[in-house]
Amino acid sequence: MKALQYVEIGQPPRVVDIPKPVVGPGQVLLKVTAAGVCHSDEFVMSLPEEQYTYGLPLTLGHEGAGIVEELGEGVEHLSVGDAVAVYGPWGCGRCHMCAQGKENYCVNAAAEGIKPPGLGSPGSMAEYMLIDDPRHLVPLGDLDPVKNVSLTDAGLTPYHAIKNSLPKLGAGTTAVVIGTGGLGHVGIQLIKALSGAVVIALDVNDEKLALATRVGADHAILSDANAVEAIKNLTGGLGADAVFDFVGVQPTVDTAIAAAAAEADVTIVGIGGGVAKVAFGGIGYDVAVRTPYWGSRGELIEVLDLARRGQVEVEVEVYSLDDGPKAYEALHAGAVRGRAVIVPSH
Amino acid sequence: MKALQYVEIGQPPRVVDIPKPVVGPGQVLLKVTAAGVCHSDEFVMSLPEEQYTYGLPLTLGHEGAGIVEELGEGVEHLSVGDAVAVYGPWGCGRCHMCAQGKENYCVNAAAEGIKPPGLGSPGSMAEYMLIDDPRHLVPLGDLDPVKNVSLTDAGLTPYHAIKNSLPKLGAGTTAVVIGTGGLGHVGIQLIKALSGAVVIALDVNDEKLALATRVGADHAILSDANAVEAIKNLTGGLGADAVFDFVGVQPTVDTAIAAAAAEADVTIVGIGGGVAKVAFGGIGYDVAVRTPYWGSRGELIEVLDLARRGQVEVEVEVYSLDDGPKAYEALHAGAVRGRAVIVPSH
Amino acid sequence: MKALQYVEIGQPPRVVDIPKPVVGPGQVLLKVTAAGVCHSDEFVMSLPEEQYTYGLPLTLGHEGAGIVEELGEGVEHLSVGDAVAVYGPWGCGRCHMCAQGKENYCVNAAAEGIKPPGLGSPGSMAEYMLIDDPRHLVPLGDLDPVKNVSLTDAGLTPYHAIKNSLPKLGAGTTAVVIGTGGLGHVGIQLIKALSGAVVIALDVNDEKLALATRVGADHAILSDANAVEAIKNLTGGLGADAVFDFVGVQPTVDTAIAAAAAEADVTIVGIGGGVAKVAFGGIGYDVAVRTPYWGSRGELIEVLDLARRGQVEVEVEVYSLDDGPKAYEALHAGAVRGRAVIVPSH
Amino acid sequence: MKALQYVEIGQPPRVVDIPKPVVGPGQVLLKVTAAGVCHSDEFVMSLPEEQYTYGLPLTLGHEGAGIVEELGEGVEHLSVGDAVAVYGPWGCGRCHMCAQGKENYCVNAAAEGIKPPGLGSPGSMAEYMLIDDPRHLVPLGDLDPVKNVSLTDAGLTPYHAIKNSLPKLGAGTTAVVIGTGGLGHVGIQLIKALSGAVVIALDVNDEKLALATRVGADHAILSDANAVEAIKNLTGGLGADAVFDFVGVQPTVDTAIAAAAAEADVTIVGIGGGVAKVAFGGIGYDVAVRTPYWGSRGELIEVLDLARRGQVEVEVEVYSLDDGPKAYEALHAGAVRGRAVIVPSH
Repeated sequence: MKALQYVEIGQPPRVVDIPKPVVGPGQVLLKVTAAGVCHSDEFVMSLPEEQYTYGLPLTLGHEGAGIVEELGEGVEHLSVGDAVAVYGPWGCGRCHMCAQGKENYCVNAAAEGIKPPGLGSPGSMAEYMLIDDPRHLVPLGDLDPVKNVSLTDAGLTPYHAIKNSLPKLGAGTTAVVIGTGGLGHVGIQLIKALSGAVVIALDVNDEKLALATRVGADHAILSDANAVEAIKNLTGGLGADAVFDFVGVQPTVDTAIAAAAAEADVTIVGIGGGVAKVAFGGIGYDVAVRTPYWGSRGELIEVLDLARRGQVEVEVEVYSLDDGPKAYEALHAGAVRGRAVIVPSH
Repeated sequence: MKALQYVEIGQPPRVVDIPKPVVGPGQVLLKVTAAGVCHSDEFVMSLPEEQYTYGLPLTLGHEGAGIVEELGEGVEHLSVGDAVAVYGPWGCGRCHMCAQGKENYCVNAAAEGIKPPGLGSPGSMAEYMLIDDPRHLVPLGDLDPVKNVSLTDAGLTPYHAIKNSLPKLGAGTTAVVIGTGGLGHVGIQLIKALSGAVVIALDVNDEKLALATRVGADHAILSDANAVEAIKNLTGGLGADAVFDFVGVQPTVDTAIAAAAAEADVTIVGIGGGVAKVAFGGIGYDVAVRTPYWGSRGELIEVLDLARRGQVEVEVEVYSLDDGPKAYEALHAGAVRGRAVIVPSH
Repeated sequence: MKALQYVEIGQPPRVVDIPKPVVGPGQVLLKVTAAGVCHSDEFVMSLPEEQYTYGLPLTLGHEGAGIVEELGEGVEHLSVGDAVAVYGPWGCGRCHMCAQGKENYCVNAAAEGIKPPGLGSPGSMAEYMLIDDPRHLVPLGDLDPVKNVSLTDAGLTPYHAIKNSLPKLGAGTTAVVIGTGGLGHVGIQLIKALSGAVVIALDVNDEKLALATRVGADHAILSDANAVEAIKNLTGGLGADAVFDFVGVQPTVDTAIAAAAAEADVTIVGIGGGVAKVAFGGIGYDVAVRTPYWGSRGELIEVLDLARRGQVEVEVEVYSLDDGPKAYEALHAGAVRGRAVIVPSH
Repeated sequence: MKALQYVEIGQPPRVVDIPKPVVGPGQVLLKVTAAGVCHSDEFVMSLPEEQYTYGLPLTLGHEGAGIVEELGEGVEHLSVGDAVAVYGPWGCGRCHMCAQGKENYCVNAAAEGIKPPGLGSPGSMAEYMLIDDPRHLVPLGDLDPVKNVSLTDAGLTPYHAIKNSLPKLGAGTTAVVIGTGGLGHVGIQLIKALSGAVVIALDVNDEKLALATRVGADHAILSDANAVEAIKNLTGGLGADAVFDFVGVQPTVDTAIAAAAAEADVTIVGIGGGVAKVAFGGIGYDVAVRTPYWGSRGELIEVLDLARRGQVEVEVEVYSLDDGPKAYEALHAGAVRGRAVIVPSH
């Protein structure tokens, strides 16, 4: 079968032909319907050899959707033909975290060498994909896999971050979203759908701010040296009750900290190398600063419920598997609007 | 000054002339701008002599707004001319509940004879109103007192009930509102503004259901013997995650219990004499059944914030103080749409 | 192999010889080390034929512990020889509830005919026990299976009920435990270990109250018509912040409701047929009344952690498999102190 | 009357004679029974003139207790002779924060020049003390004012920090307390009284660790370069679920961050100038880092409830008002064990 693989350190990924996987007991084989292209793939492929730990060749794709093609022995409560999305952060399934569906925080994954598909295990950018355990599949039902596959990461990651802050986003509150791209434009929709907060979106140019407004931001302002003052003005001098930084470089992290009201949440989602400094007097009282990672299985079900109701929608650009390398080129060039999705049958 | 008083058991309230109150140290005198007419006034005036405990004559009005007319000695942080709303459930101010602003649950009020304005203390249906302590005043700012005075009860009461359930009204959830009148039509707006829930509204005729739809209900169905089945059909067989019963008669309470999914909240707000029966097997697992009362001071500030942002709006009909008795007649006849408001200057 | 089975409606269970189960793909075979005897088994065996839905013959035992004897194909992260406890409330594993480990509230179990071991599926009262999926096993490690097997129900059930109320059991609070038997004597320990609450225990005789005091209750009082007044006296007239009724007959349920302070939790765990009546004026404001069922997988891990630290301990009486019928006789006669446990190797 | 005042920048405080305050409407005059000596007084008196903003002369003492001596006009619900503790972080009383009793986070205090007693307003280190509003007084009842006055800061501050983390300190969890002095030795008691957590205490010498163990720490280890590894060893490699740093210098802050498990709380209470660095990969996922300040009025009531039940106790050393300067000398020399308290009648 065809697969898009990262084969050689420093080289672009390529389309190769590899054997179709064979399903073992307790496993599931999917015929892939859609695979999302993510900045973190680019990050992985940018690592020098001594820091690269994902194995070679690596079939890419940690956002995946498919149709159940074949069930391994002993698999129950699932049928051939079912449309599913893949829950990506695989864990051991038995620790206290995994017992609550929080496999993204599995305490055994590292020690046992368990790796997400596309980030160590073979990913979704292939005609077929092997799933280690049926618990990692969530029903898609009638949801369009192409339009929704990105929810498994670009939806789940902001959702997890935002859900944590919902108790702080009640009546009369304000949320700030920094970065309105792949994750941020989903985040804005999630906050508007789930909370009473006014949303202030920050980004670096008018086109991006226009997208922010279109998906529901109440205010869209340039992410520059005046942003904090603008946020204070919009909040009666108090600052925001939650700030989500989907960029995570030093200037945005500094803005996030400075814009936070007492008891606010500052959540740094973007992996841009910025460091938040938390010290008495340098940040609002009781502001909680966090760096989360992906989300839980229950949360993925919730994100898909939102999509089913039309409360969240991802902008997507479609590529065939053969054109997969071009998707990464476009991503690198900043030319993808929303999210690029690879569709093997395209 | 003129005041609308309940003077004699069993007789309608009447407009009387009484002395303008004299402000003492630590007190505040308001020139009343608006006073809401509430079903509970009617309930109070329906009590036979042996059950009536509110004193006679009683100046009515537990929903009030006004302009600060005069400050008693020692009152700070408030100025003559300030526009304010009155927080009605007065407490002792020093117990653990009051220390958190939850004066509605003051543990000393009963023993110390502390009574809310209009429900024992002189209320807002007069030209002037005496406030015992400035902490019972919340700034109105530019909010129209006539349109918003009812938020002090018809807004605060559903807000308190709903806020308690917000953690259960996240993505993919459903809320049921039974009764779309004074409190219910506000409740629907609050749920839509603050949560991700789909709202199913129940009432007894098409006109009321039309109002429910107009203020944001996603589904509006007749409150009859088929309502539970309809709710189950709309929720994949599971039932609702929160049910708010603003009627509280036996059939609506029974519907509320039967419509609740596992781990749901059932909140009975309407004082209709219904009794919820909670027994293993007769209600969903871990469904929490409650009967709340009014709300906290912090919550009133939050409700007013929602109004300021246009997230909640009360339908009102205006009466002069002289026409006050007619307002109660209209209420009794079920002829008030939304909320009747008495405006002394009208 | 030997098994204790319920074979004929209305007859006592008997020890029979049945084939050792054969492990299939994805399954696990346990050599049973301990099996708990529970009142609900007695309830099941008391049902008339037309209400009995658990299948015949039924191998009893929904509290189980064992040693992994054999792994089905495809089972990972588990080894032959591992000591485990069985998580009993089996669910579909894929619904929103199961995705969070709350299989006790699985929304598909009823429709798909999924039944807990000992309550439909073959239970733990046998030499060997078949587990449908390794996720239903929780590591025991060094914990003595005989002393701790009952934690899978008699520990987990009160733990789940109490955990829900911990936010209400902070500084200066009071919890009431009604019934200090199998579940109640564990509940007292859990509240003392996990919260700041003073514990008032209620039971019907001095011997039971002595046990309550020994396991940590601060006050132990007779469960009679004066109990509510006694609780009020111990709480400055306010009542308790949480009441756990492990009996659930009408008088205890009435006591629970009457003893609850505003905003308290009343949790009815015992299946004694009592009905809690919730109506405005007849119960404290915002008291939440619930009937929970068993607990989640994550919670079972937490209960075992408590045992590992010595924060909870179950009183047990040991019986051999051959003497299993005698254990049920003793239970029926009220002659079991704490919990009876069947040990096949005894 | 006698008062201990800070009179001149850079000079030690001295005992002076000043007029007894005159009570105005809405105010309360206390006869002081006890006043706590705190490190923050020392910090204030160490500031150079250009940074000093507390006014001169400044009567010291932000921890205070007294007997009501005289009531201003209009003060209700309080009597001459009542024993009270002073809630120190005074706010405007009307903002959203103050409406919930969180005057420590008042949004208007700075703009309106409202300052806590002893930190701008005249404090408790005098024979008499003027209270601006009766809401700032909490009943002491039978509690010994000398032994408990420090709970108004040295109790309330750790209590507020710890209460925020109680949801993370359930079964099987671990808390780390860094610094076992004035606040830390109270914090250890609070965690043990209110949660299920094992407590690991860190400090710099054996004497301090002995105190930690005596007040309830489960483990007491040296706060050095090996501390993180020791904590990991005691927590199965996972780290702690909450870390409270009552020192706040760079090495302790670094330890706190490194010792935190995924989803833990790190709360920096000590004002030692350390900066916590929060960056993806440099801290556990979803660890929340905070710097709180003092506590709410409701929380002070809760702390006093704990003292009333014997769940928390402060070590105190008593000084007369005349010996007040010596108390500060001893504090500066690190010679105070627990908390120094000034007793005017001593």
